[in-house]
Amino acid sequence: MIQPRMATTLGFVLTDARVSPAILRGILARANERSYNRLSVDGDTSTNDTVVLLANGASGVTLDPKRDERDALEAGVTAVMESLARQIARDGEGATRLITIHVAGAADDRLAAQIARSIANSPLVKTAMAGADPNWGRIICAAGNAGVAFDPAKADIELQGTVVCRGGLAAPFSESELKKKLEAPECEIKFTIRGKGKGAAHFWSCDLTEGYIRINASYRT
Amino acid sequence: MIQPRMATTLGFVLTDARVSPAILRGILARANERSYNRLSVDGDTSTNDTVVLLANGASGVTLDPKRDERDALEAGVTAVMESLARQIARDGEGATRLITIHVAGAADDRLAAQIARSIANSPLVKTAMAGADPNWGRIICAAGNAGVAFDPAKADIELQGTVVCRGGLAAPFSESELKKKLEAPECEIKFTIRGKGKGAAHFWSCDLTEGYIRINASYRT
Repeated sequence: MIQPRMATTLGFVLTDARVSPAILRGILARANERSYNRLSVDGDTSTNDTVVLLANGASGVTLDPKRDERDALEAGVTAVMESLARQIARDGEGATRLITIHVAGAADDRLAAQIARSIANSPLVKTAMAGADPNWGRIICAAGNAGVAFDPAKADIELQGTVVCRGGLAAPFSESELKKKLEAPECEIKFTIRGKGKGAAHFWSCDLTEGYIRINASYRT
Repeated sequence: MIQPRMATTLGFVLTDARVSPAILRGILARANERSYNRLSVDGDTSTNDTVVLLANGASGVTLDPKRDERDALEAGVTAVMESLARQIARDGEGATRLITIHVAGAADDRLAAQIARSIANSPLVKTAMAGADPNWGRIICAAGNAGVAFDPAKADIELQGTVVCRGGLAAPFSESELKKKLEAPECEIKFTIRGKGKGAAHFWSCDLTEGYIRINASYRT
Protein backbone atom coordinates (compact mmCIF):
# COMPACT_ATOMS: atom_id res chain seq x y z
CA MET A 1 0.00 0.00 0.00
CA ILE A 2 1.36 3.31 -0.97
CA GLN A 3 0.45 6.62 0.58
CA PRO A 4 -3.08 6.28 1.83
CA ARG A 5 -3.71 8.80 4.55
CA MET A 6 -2.25 8.60 8.00
CA ALA A 7 -5.37 7.43 9.76
CA THR A 8 -4.54 3.86 8.73
CA THR A 9 -6.47 2.79 5.69
CA LEU A 10 -8.40 -0.43 6.18
CA GLY A 11 -10.35 -1.58 3.12
CA PHE A 12 -12.75 -4.52 3.08
CA VAL A 13 -14.42 -5.52 -0.18
CA LEU A 14 -16.91 -8.36 -0.15
CA THR A 15 -18.62 -10.50 -2.76
CA ASP A 16 -21.04 -13.37 -2.29
CA ALA A 17 -19.83 -15.08 -5.45
CA ARG A 18 -18.02 -18.39 -5.18
CA VAL A 19 -14.53 -17.58 -6.55
CA SER A 20 -11.16 -19.24 -6.13
CA PRO A 21 -8.51 -17.46 -4.02
CA ALA A 22 -6.15 -17.39 -7.02
CA ILE A 23 -8.63 -15.49 -9.19
CA LEU A 24 -9.53 -13.16 -6.33
CA ARG A 25 -5.87 -12.42 -5.70
CA GLY A 26 -5.31 -11.40 -9.32
CA ILE A 27 -8.42 -9.21 -9.36
CA LEU A 28 -7.46 -7.52 -6.09
CA ALA A 29 -3.88 -6.82 -7.20
CA ARG A 30 -5.00 -5.22 -10.47
CA ALA A 31 -7.91 -3.30 -8.93
CA ASN A 32 -5.64 -2.10 -6.12
CA GLU A 33 -3.17 -0.72 -8.65
CA ARG A 34 -5.95 1.44 -10.10
CA SER A 35 -7.49 2.54 -6.82
CA TYR A 36 -5.75 2.52 -3.44
CA ASN A 37 -2.32 2.73 -5.06
CA ARG A 38 -3.47 5.85 -6.93
CA LEU A 39 -4.38 7.77 -3.84
CA SER A 40 -2.47 10.16 -1.63
CA VAL A 41 -3.60 12.68 0.92
CA ASP A 42 -0.20 13.74 2.23
CA GLY A 43 2.39 11.27 0.98
CA ASP A 44 2.58 9.58 4.36
CA THR A 45 1.98 5.87 4.77
CA SER A 46 0.87 3.74 7.69
CA THR A 47 2.34 0.38 8.58
CA ASN A 48 -1.19 -0.93 9.05
CA ASP A 49 -2.67 -0.08 5.65
CA THR A 50 -4.67 -3.06 4.50
CA VAL A 51 -7.07 -3.99 1.73
CA VAL A 52 -8.76 -7.38 1.63
CA LEU A 53 -11.15 -8.89 -0.87
CA LEU A 54 -13.39 -11.61 0.56
CA ALA A 55 -15.72 -14.03 -1.21
CA ASN A 56 -17.97 -16.19 0.95
CA GLY A 57 -19.88 -17.95 -1.85
CA ALA A 58 -23.19 -17.27 -0.04
CA SER A 59 -25.00 -16.64 -3.33
CA GLY A 60 -24.30 -20.21 -4.38
CA VAL A 61 -23.20 -18.82 -7.75
CA THR A 62 -19.84 -20.17 -8.86
CA LEU A 63 -17.81 -17.84 -11.03
CA ASP A 64 -17.11 -19.24 -14.47
CA PRO A 65 -13.34 -18.68 -14.58
CA LYS A 66 -13.53 -17.86 -18.31
CA ARG A 67 -12.61 -14.38 -19.41
CA ASP A 68 -16.08 -12.80 -19.54
CA GLU A 69 -17.34 -13.53 -16.04
CA ARG A 70 -13.98 -12.87 -14.49
CA ASP A 71 -13.75 -9.53 -16.29
CA ALA A 72 -17.22 -8.58 -15.11
CA LEU A 73 -16.30 -9.32 -11.48
CA GLU A 74 -13.02 -7.47 -11.87
CA ALA A 75 -14.79 -4.43 -13.32
CA GLY A 76 -17.20 -4.43 -10.38
CA VAL A 77 -14.48 -4.79 -7.76
CA THR A 78 -12.41 -2.08 -9.47
CA ALA A 79 -15.37 0.31 -9.56
CA VAL A 80 -16.02 -0.24 -5.84
CA MET A 81 -12.37 0.24 -4.94
CA GLU A 82 -12.00 3.34 -7.12
CA SER A 83 -15.04 4.79 -5.41
CA LEU A 84 -13.51 4.02 -1.99
CA ALA A 85 -10.19 5.59 -3.02
CA ARG A 86 -11.96 8.77 -4.18
CA GLN A 87 -13.91 8.91 -0.92
CA ILE A 88 -10.72 8.56 1.11
CA ALA A 89 -9.04 11.38 -0.84
CA ARG A 90 -12.11 13.62 -0.52
CA ASP A 91 -12.20 12.89 3.21
CA GLY A 92 -8.49 13.82 3.74
CA GLU A 93 -7.83 15.78 6.92
CA GLY A 94 -9.14 19.30 6.38
CA ALA A 95 -9.78 18.74 2.66
CA THR A 96 -12.33 20.96 0.95
CA ARG A 97 -12.01 19.44 -2.52
CA LEU A 98 -11.17 16.22 -4.29
CA ILE A 99 -8.42 16.58 -6.88
CA THR A 100 -8.25 14.13 -9.77
CA ILE A 101 -5.03 14.15 -11.73
CA HIS A 102 -4.82 12.70 -15.21
CA VAL A 103 -1.43 12.23 -16.82
CA ALA A 104 -1.19 11.20 -20.48
CA GLY A 105 1.54 10.76 -23.06
CA ALA A 106 4.22 9.19 -20.86
CA ALA A 107 6.35 6.31 -22.13
CA ASP A 108 4.27 3.86 -20.08
CA ASP A 109 1.55 3.79 -17.42
CA ARG A 110 4.01 3.35 -14.57
CA LEU A 111 5.90 6.53 -15.48
CA ALA A 112 2.61 8.38 -15.95
CA ALA A 113 1.59 7.31 -12.43
CA GLN A 114 4.98 8.47 -11.12
CA ILE A 115 4.39 11.96 -12.54
CA ALA A 116 0.81 11.98 -11.25
CA ARG A 117 1.96 10.98 -7.76
CA SER A 118 4.50 13.80 -7.71
CA ILE A 119 1.82 16.35 -8.63
CA ALA A 120 -0.55 14.80 -6.07
CA ASN A 121 2.02 15.07 -3.27
CA SER A 122 3.26 18.60 -3.92
CA PRO A 123 2.30 20.81 -0.96
CA LEU A 124 2.52 23.82 -3.28
CA VAL A 125 0.08 22.34 -5.80
CA LYS A 126 -2.23 21.32 -2.95
CA THR A 127 -2.19 24.76 -1.31
CA ALA A 128 -2.76 26.39 -4.72
CA MET A 129 -5.85 24.21 -5.10
CA ALA A 130 -6.96 25.22 -1.60
CA GLY A 131 -6.78 28.82 -2.79
CA ALA A 132 -8.50 28.03 -6.12
CA ASP A 133 -5.37 29.44 -7.74
CA PRO A 134 -4.66 28.28 -11.34
CA ASN A 135 -0.94 28.13 -10.56
CA TRP A 136 0.20 25.82 -13.34
CA GLY A 137 3.87 26.70 -12.72
CA ARG A 138 3.68 24.67 -9.52
CA ILE A 139 2.17 21.76 -11.44
CA ILE A 140 4.87 21.64 -14.10
CA CYS A 141 7.53 21.99 -11.36
CA ALA A 142 6.05 19.07 -9.44
CA ALA A 143 5.90 16.99 -12.63
CA GLY A 144 9.53 17.84 -13.36
CA ASN A 145 10.40 16.73 -9.83
CA ALA A 146 8.98 13.23 -10.44
CA GLY A 147 12.23 11.75 -11.72
CA VAL A 148 10.76 11.12 -15.18
CA ALA A 149 12.48 12.86 -18.10
CA PHE A 150 10.27 14.96 -20.36
CA ASP A 151 10.63 18.11 -22.44
CA PRO A 152 8.70 20.94 -20.75
CA ALA A 153 8.26 22.51 -24.20
CA LYS A 154 6.02 19.54 -25.01
CA ALA A 155 3.86 19.72 -21.89
CA ASP A 156 0.26 20.91 -21.80
CA ILE A 157 -1.84 21.52 -18.68
CA GLU A 158 -5.59 21.81 -18.30
CA LEU A 159 -7.41 22.83 -15.13
CA GLN A 160 -11.13 22.08 -15.01
CA GLY A 161 -11.03 21.66 -18.80
CA THR A 162 -9.39 25.05 -19.38
CA VAL A 163 -5.99 25.02 -21.11
CA VAL A 164 -3.61 27.05 -18.92
CA CYS A 165 -0.28 25.90 -20.38
CA ARG A 166 0.53 24.81 -23.91
CA GLY A 167 3.98 23.61 -24.87
CA GLY A 168 5.35 24.75 -21.52
CA LEU A 169 4.13 28.32 -22.02
CA ALA A 170 1.22 30.25 -20.54
CA ALA A 171 -1.99 29.92 -22.52
CA PRO A 172 -4.44 32.83 -22.28
CA PHE A 173 -7.44 32.23 -20.00
CA SER A 174 -9.79 34.23 -17.83
CA GLU A 175 -8.39 34.26 -14.29
CA SER A 176 -11.72 35.12 -12.69
CA GLU A 177 -13.71 32.49 -14.58
CA LEU A 178 -11.19 29.75 -13.87
CA LYS A 179 -10.91 30.74 -10.21
CA LYS A 180 -14.67 30.28 -9.94
CA LYS A 181 -14.44 26.86 -11.61
CA LEU A 182 -11.66 25.85 -9.21
CA GLU A 183 -13.88 26.58 -6.23
CA ALA A 184 -15.88 23.45 -7.10
CA PRO A 185 -15.81 20.45 -4.72
CA GLU A 186 -14.06 18.40 -7.43
CA CYS A 187 -11.11 19.66 -9.44
CA GLU A 188 -9.34 18.09 -12.36
CA ILE A 189 -5.73 18.56 -13.38
CA LYS A 190 -4.80 17.19 -16.78
CA PHE A 191 -1.10 16.97 -17.59
CA THR A 192 -0.13 15.81 -21.07
CA ILE A 193 3.29 15.33 -22.59
CA ARG A 194 3.86 14.73 -26.27
CA GLY A 195 6.26 12.49 -28.11
CA LYS A 196 6.88 9.91 -25.39
CA GLY A 197 4.14 7.32 -25.77
CA LYS A 198 0.67 6.34 -24.66
CA GLY A 199 1.30 5.85 -20.94
CA ALA A 200 -1.58 7.24 -18.89
CA ALA A 201 -2.60 7.28 -15.24
CA HIS A 202 -5.09 8.86 -12.93
CA PHE A 203 -4.45 9.79 -9.32
CA TRP A 204 -6.60 11.15 -6.49
CA SER A 205 -5.58 13.70 -3.94
CA CYS A 206 -7.11 16.66 -2.10
CA ASP A 207 -6.27 20.24 -1.30
CA LEU A 208 -4.09 21.16 1.67
CA THR A 209 -5.79 23.55 4.05
CA GLU A 210 -5.30 24.93 7.54
CA GLY A 211 -7.67 22.16 8.68
CA TYR A 212 -4.96 19.58 7.92
CA ILE A 213 -2.58 21.36 10.29
CA ARG A 214 -5.20 21.82 13.00
CA ILE A 215 -6.09 18.13 12.93
CA ASN A 216 -2.57 16.73 12.75
CA ALA A 217 -0.78 19.18 15.02
CA SER A 218 -3.30 18.96 17.83
CA TYR A 219 -4.02 15.36 18.63
CA ARG A 220 -1.72 13.64 21.07
CA THR A 221 -0.15 10.23 20.68
CA MET B 1 19.55 21.39 -6.23
CA ILE B 2 17.15 19.33 -4.30
CA GLN B 3 14.17 20.62 -2.41
CA PRO B 4 14.97 24.08 -1.30
CA ARG B 5 11.84 26.00 -0.63
CA MET B 6 9.48 27.22 -3.32
CA ALA B 7 10.51 30.84 -3.23
CA THR B 8 13.45 30.03 -5.52
CA THR B 9 16.66 29.60 -3.62
CA LEU B 10 19.50 31.76 -4.88
CA GLY B 11 22.78 31.34 -3.01
CA PHE B 12 25.88 33.46 -3.59
CA VAL B 13 29.05 32.70 -1.67
CA LEU B 14 32.05 34.92 -2.15
CA THR B 15 35.73 34.79 -1.29
CA ASP B 16 38.50 37.27 -2.04
CA ALA B 17 41.09 34.51 -2.28
CA ARG B 18 42.72 33.78 -5.62
CA VAL B 19 41.61 30.18 -6.35
CA SER B 20 41.39 28.17 -9.55
CA PRO B 21 37.91 27.36 -10.91
CA ALA B 22 38.68 23.62 -10.69
CA ILE B 23 39.40 23.79 -6.97
CA LEU B 24 36.38 26.04 -6.35
CA ARG B 25 34.14 23.65 -8.24
CA GLY B 26 35.21 20.70 -6.07
CA ILE B 27 34.76 22.70 -2.87
CA LEU B 28 31.31 23.92 -3.94
CA ALA B 29 30.11 20.43 -4.92
CA ARG B 30 31.15 18.92 -1.60
CA ALA B 31 29.94 21.83 0.52
CA ASN B 32 26.63 21.84 -1.37
CA GLU B 33 26.13 18.15 -0.58
CA ARG B 34 26.37 18.97 3.13
CA SER B 35 24.26 22.14 3.08
CA TYR B 36 21.73 23.08 0.39
CA ASN B 37 21.24 19.44 -0.58
CA ARG B 38 20.40 18.65 3.05
CA LEU B 39 17.56 21.10 3.27
CA SER B 40 13.85 20.83 2.66
CA VAL B 41 10.96 23.01 3.68
CA ASP B 42 8.20 21.22 1.81
CA GLY B 43 9.76 18.79 -0.66
CA ASP B 44 9.04 21.10 -3.57
CA THR B 45 11.77 22.31 -5.89
CA SER B 46 12.12 25.35 -8.11
CA THR B 47 13.57 25.29 -11.59
CA ASN B 48 15.60 28.38 -10.71
CA ASP B 49 17.42 27.11 -7.62
CA THR B 50 21.02 28.24 -7.89
CA VAL B 51 24.14 28.32 -5.76
CA VAL B 52 27.35 29.94 -6.99
CA LEU B 53 30.76 30.27 -5.38
CA LEU B 54 32.78 33.22 -6.64
CA ALA B 55 36.42 34.12 -6.02
CA ASN B 56 37.65 37.50 -7.25
CA GLY B 57 41.20 37.30 -5.93
CA ALA B 58 40.91 40.84 -4.55
CA SER B 59 42.96 39.95 -1.47
CA GLY B 60 45.92 39.19 -3.71
CA VAL B 61 46.40 35.99 -1.69
CA THR B 62 46.79 32.96 -3.92
CA LEU B 63 45.55 29.71 -2.44
CA ASP B 64 48.27 27.13 -2.04
CA PRO B 65 46.50 24.19 -3.72
CA LYS B 66 48.06 21.78 -1.21
CA ARG B 67 45.78 19.90 1.11
CA ASP B 68 45.95 22.17 4.17
CA GLU B 69 44.99 25.50 2.64
CA ARG B 70 42.38 23.95 0.41
CA ASP B 71 40.84 22.15 3.39
CA ALA B 72 40.75 25.39 5.36
CA LEU B 73 38.92 27.17 2.54
CA GLU B 74 36.55 24.24 2.11
CA ALA B 75 35.78 24.20 5.84
CA GLY B 76 35.00 27.91 5.73
CA VAL B 77 32.80 27.67 2.64
CA THR B 78 30.99 24.65 4.11
CA ALA B 79 30.35 26.47 7.39
CA VAL B 80 28.92 29.48 5.53
CA MET B 81 26.69 27.30 3.35
CA GLU B 82 25.48 25.19 6.27
CA SER B 83 24.57 28.38 8.08
CA LEU B 84 22.66 29.59 5.00
CA ALA B 85 20.86 26.24 4.69
CA ARG B 86 19.80 26.39 8.35
CA GLN B 87 18.59 29.96 7.91
CA ILE B 88 16.51 28.97 4.86
CA ALA B 89 14.91 26.07 6.76
CA ARG B 90 14.20 28.25 9.79
CA ASP B 91 12.67 30.88 7.50
CA GLY B 92 10.33 28.35 5.78
CA GLU B 93 6.85 29.69 5.10
CA GLY B 94 5.01 29.81 8.42
CA ALA B 95 7.76 27.94 10.27
CA THR B 96 8.01 28.40 14.02
CA ARG B 97 10.97 26.10 14.57
CA LEU B 98 14.05 24.72 12.86
CA ILE B 99 14.23 20.94 12.85
CA THR B 100 17.60 19.23 12.59
CA ILE B 101 17.51 15.54 11.78
CA HIS B 102 20.47 13.29 12.45
CA VAL B 103 20.47 9.77 11.03
CA ALA B 104 23.20 7.32 12.05
CA GLY B 105 23.97 3.65 11.52
CA ALA B 106 22.91 3.34 7.87
CA ALA B 107 24.97 1.31 5.40
CA ASP B 108 26.41 4.52 3.95
CA ASP B 109 25.98 8.31 4.11
CA ARG B 110 23.79 8.41 1.00
CA LEU B 111 21.25 6.00 2.49
CA ALA B 112 21.35 7.89 5.79
CA ALA B 113 20.52 11.09 3.90
CA GLN B 114 17.68 9.30 2.10
CA ILE B 115 16.12 8.34 5.45
CA ALA B 116 16.71 11.84 6.84
CA ARG B 117 15.06 13.41 3.79
CA SER B 118 12.00 11.19 4.18
CA ILE B 119 11.61 12.23 7.83
CA ALA B 120 12.20 15.88 6.86
CA ASN B 121 9.48 15.79 4.20
CA SER B 122 6.77 13.97 6.13
CA PRO B 123 3.82 16.34 6.66
CA LEU B 124 2.81 14.25 9.67
CA VAL B 125 6.21 14.59 11.32
CA LYS B 126 6.21 18.31 10.52
CA THR B 127 2.74 18.91 11.95
CA ALA B 128 3.65 16.87 15.05
CA MET B 129 6.62 19.20 15.53
CA ALA B 130 4.31 22.19 15.07
CA GLY B 131 2.23 20.78 17.93
CA ALA B 132 5.33 19.97 20.05
CA ASP B 133 4.05 16.39 20.03
CA PRO B 134 6.67 13.65 20.67
CA ASN B 135 4.98 11.42 18.09
CA TRP B 136 7.84 9.06 17.31
CA GLY B 137 5.50 6.63 15.52
CA ARG B 138 5.28 9.16 12.69
CA ILE B 139 9.07 9.41 12.59
CA ILE B 140 9.67 5.66 12.33
CA CYS B 141 6.89 5.44 9.68
CA ALA B 142 8.51 8.20 7.62
CA ALA B 143 11.89 6.47 7.94
CA GLY B 144 10.33 3.19 6.81
CA ASN B 145 8.86 5.02 3.84
CA ALA B 146 12.31 6.14 2.64
CA GLY B 147 12.94 3.10 0.47
CA VAL B 148 15.88 1.98 2.62
CA ALA B 149 15.62 -1.44 4.25
CA PHE B 150 16.15 -1.59 8.01
CA ASP B 151 14.84 -3.63 10.91
CA PRO B 152 12.51 -1.46 13.03
CA ALA B 153 13.42 -3.63 16.02
CA LYS B 154 16.91 -2.10 15.74
CA ALA B 155 15.81 1.53 15.52
CA ASP B 156 16.21 4.10 18.28
CA ILE B 157 14.78 7.61 18.30
CA GLU B 158 15.74 10.62 20.41
CA LEU B 159 13.87 13.91 20.52
CA GLN B 160 15.72 16.85 22.05
CA GLY B 161 18.12 14.34 23.61
CA THR B 162 15.34 12.29 25.21
CA VAL B 163 15.07 8.64 24.15
CA VAL B 164 11.47 8.04 23.04
CA CYS B 165 11.92 4.77 21.15
CA ARG B 166 14.42 1.99 21.76
CA GLY B 167 14.57 -1.04 19.49
CA GLY B 168 11.33 0.02 17.79
CA LEU B 169 9.43 0.10 21.08
CA ALA B 170 8.23 2.98 23.24
CA ALA B 171 10.77 4.10 25.82
CA PRO B 172 9.38 5.68 29.00
CA PHE B 173 9.63 9.48 29.15
CA SER B 174 7.80 12.39 30.70
CA GLU B 175 5.26 13.67 28.16
CA SER B 176 4.94 17.08 29.80
CA GLU B 177 8.69 17.65 30.13
CA LEU B 178 9.40 16.62 26.56
CA LYS B 179 6.52 18.69 25.23
CA LYS B 180 8.08 21.72 26.91
CA LYS B 181 11.47 20.90 25.37
CA LEU B 182 9.85 20.55 21.93
CA GLU B 183 8.45 24.08 22.17
CA ALA B 184 11.99 25.41 21.67
CA PRO B 185 12.85 27.31 18.48
CA GLU B 186 15.26 24.52 17.50
CA CYS B 187 14.36 20.83 17.67
CA GLU B 188 16.52 17.81 17.11
CA ILE B 189 15.43 14.40 15.89
CA LYS B 190 18.01 11.64 16.16
CA PHE B 191 17.27 8.40 14.34
CA THR B 192 19.72 5.54 14.78
CA ILE B 193 19.69 2.07 13.31
CA ARG B 194 21.98 -0.71 14.42
CA GLY B 195 23.79 -3.42 12.52
CA LYS B 196 23.96 -1.73 9.11
CA GLY B 197 27.09 0.40 9.14
CA LYS B 198 28.46 3.83 9.90
CA GLY B 199 26.50 5.88 7.36
CA ALA B 200 25.39 9.18 8.86
CA ALA B 201 23.69 12.34 7.64
CA HIS B 202 22.13 15.51 8.93
CA PHE B 203 19.17 17.28 7.37
CA TRP B 204 17.36 20.56 8.04
CA SER B 205 13.66 21.14 7.89
CA CYS B 206 11.00 23.10 9.76
CA ASP B 207 7.59 22.54 11.26
CA LEU B 208 4.42 22.74 9.14
CA THR B 209 1.94 25.26 10.48
CA GLU B 210 -1.22 27.02 9.38
CA GLY B 211 1.06 29.88 8.32
CA TYR B 212 2.39 27.73 5.48
CA ILE B 213 -1.12 27.28 4.13
CA ARG B 214 -2.02 30.94 4.55
CA ILE B 215 1.07 32.05 2.65
CA ASN B 216 0.91 29.50 -0.17
CA ALA B 217 -2.84 29.34 -0.70
CA SER B 218 -3.32 33.07 -0.83
CA TYR B 219 -0.87 34.62 -3.21
CA ARG B 220 -1.83 34.78 -6.86
CA THR B 221 0.36 33.80 -9.78
